[in-house]
Amino acid sequence: MKKLINDPEAVVSEALEGIAAAYPERLRVSHDPAFIVRADAPVSGKVGVLSGGGSGHEPLHGGFVGRGMLGVACPGAVFTSPTPDQMLAATQAVDGGAGVLHIVKNYTGDVMNFEAAAELAAAEGAEVASVLVDDDVAVQDSTYTAGRRGVGATVLVEKIAGAAAEAGRPLADVAALAERVNAQARSMGMALTSCTVPHVGTPTFDLAEDEMEIGIGIHGEPGRERVGLEAADRIVDRLLEPILSDLPFVAGDRVLAFVNGMGGTPLIELYIVYRRVAQVLAERGLRIERNLIGNYITSLEMAGTSITLLKLDDELVRLWDAPVDTLALRWGV
Amino acid sequence: MKKLINDPEAVVSEALEGIAAAYPERLRVSHDPAFIVRADAPVSGKVGVLSGGGSGHEPLHGGFVGRGMLGVACPGAVFTSPTPDQMLAATQAVDGGAGVLHIVKNYTGDVMNFEAAAELAAAEGAEVASVLVDDDVAVQDSTYTAGRRGVGATVLVEKIAGAAAEAGRPLADVAALAERVNAQARSMGMALTSCTVPHVGTPTFDLAEDEMEIGIGIHGEPGRERVGLEAADRIVDRLLEPILSDLPFVAGDRVLAFVNGMGGTPLIELYIVYRRVAQVLAERGLRIERNLIGNYITSLEMAGTSITLLKLDDELVRLWDAPVDTLALRWGV
Repeated sequence: MKKLINDPEAVVSEALEGIAAAYPERLRVSHDPAFIVRADAPVSGKVGVLSGGGSGHEPLHGGFVGRGMLGVACPGAVFTSPTPDQMLAATQAVDGGAGVLHIVKNYTGDVMNFEAAAELAAAEGAEVASVLVDDDVAVQDSTYTAGRRGVGATVLVEKIAGAAAEAGRPLADVAALAERVNAQARSMGMALTSCTVPHVGTPTFDLAEDEMEIGIGIHGEPGRERVGLEAADRIVDRLLEPILSDLPFVAGDRVLAFVNGMGGTPLIELYIVYRRVAQVLAERGLRIERNLIGNYITSLEMAGTSITLLKLDDELVRLWDAPVDTLALRWGV
Repeated sequence: MKKLINDPEAVVSEALEGIAAAYPERLRVSHDPAFIVRADAPVSGKVGVLSGGGSGHEPLHGGFVGRGMLGVACPGAVFTSPTPDQMLAATQAVDGGAGVLHIVKNYTGDVMNFEAAAELAAAEGAEVASVLVDDDVAVQDSTYTAGRRGVGATVLVEKIAGAAAEAGRPLADVAALAERVNAQARSMGMALTSCTVPHVGTPTFDLAEDEMEIGIGIHGEPGRERVGLEAADRIVDRLLEPILSDLPFVAGDRVLAFVNGMGGTPLIELYIVYRRVAQVLAERGLRIERNLIGNYITSLEMAGTSITLLKLDDELVRLWDAPVDTLALRWGV
């Protein structure tokens, strides 16, 4: 295992120390329990937006904490859910009296722990709403999931819900918007190589030099099929077809196209992926009104990509365009 | 070779097509000759700032084109200098009548071609100044370089020169600032793994599972030594010592600390690297006033990191903080 780490068991805690050292004006880092919170939290009278999950998907979620997006992020150990106590403390840290939205990726551990946290928070007087993200069309159930997995749409849900919260919208509205983004988004990913979880020390799965996995999960969960390596354009076609037919996306739809890198794929390759996405969507008569290209929801050093399409309307465009001031997404400020 | 590409010979041209499709409001892409230019170029009365070099280091340089940073970027083939004709066309595309600054990383091919381009541009009436970036303390001469290589400081030179140009400073001032940033910056990098140049198809070098290369160049050029894998803290110490002693940086200095990923290293590891950088600089009595952490000058999918320190003063801080609106660096807008 080749990694820039000290102790495999201390990866998350030492990374949090690095974040704390780097961004004291912007973020507060709590180490025990672990969470990353906006320096100005709680914002009185505004909905607090919380997300969290296993580490190893950076910049998700900590890199999305800041004005106009998340109020707080709870990092678990690598690929491991944070605990209910941790989520409770984070909920309280962003509760400005207008309630807190929990954005939960659909993995069984996260779902259970977020449910427990929401109950604990409610018992202590906090108003909590939850939204489950399950945008991955690749498979129905999976290693850690009943139903569909939550993947790239999480970034879009966090941005749009965060913008609504920042605008002072009430909890029910913020939650409804988050639900709408999830309902209108579909994703699928693929991997060229595995990643290695630090505390495991060996690759999560094996792929031959001439193989790739279509429909991979962000923890290396099996996808739809393992096939021979192909050209980027053909790979994009394999990812787009199930995405487009599932919602379905149809001619005339306005979309946000999100091309995500899994962590180990260079940006230059993501542009080649985007090129084909733009071609296919143009052929289908869809209009890409917004896009996002980069490493935003990763799987450590896995090489690969995922594509997310979100069907847009005027309100979603306005909230997407609203100012955001986080480490990983920043505009309008 | 596992890459998301179609044709190894078409990687750069197809990536440019992707960029052109993605950012038409922000950038204009010329395909032959290849360059990426601000949509509003040339800006009348302001210095145009040009940089370029081999592709494979994304987001450098194209990701830094925009208001407050580069006016134009010339991408060569992967790890190969762009041509003088290409640089000439790019120079003319950003010449708003106040001259053009060429920011050149110190690699023999780039230096020769930029010199030829500057002569061609001068012959056609453009006023051109050039700054050579050579901040890598690892080795004196190298595979493609006489003198020191240009690495991480390039990003800082581009930001600060770009801010000065945006502020309407004359060419001589913009060039002098770029020279000052280079003179006050020092860098060193390391690799855990090699990268594979698409049109070559095999790894540039081989490292055993328990080895790393200290002082690596951004094209995989040999460093100072190949040693056994060590903990991240020890690796940071190995990189910082030559950087600190070279300028030298001394107690009381104000610095910008830039922790860069080589492309295949996850962000979570870069935070662990930054943690140690902050510890060591605090022990030495240096004050980190600004920082930058992420994948900004990469070597395709190489795993590894480089550290750059820039000695700051009030003027450099002001120019660093000035608004910038590019794909990879964006604030204040």
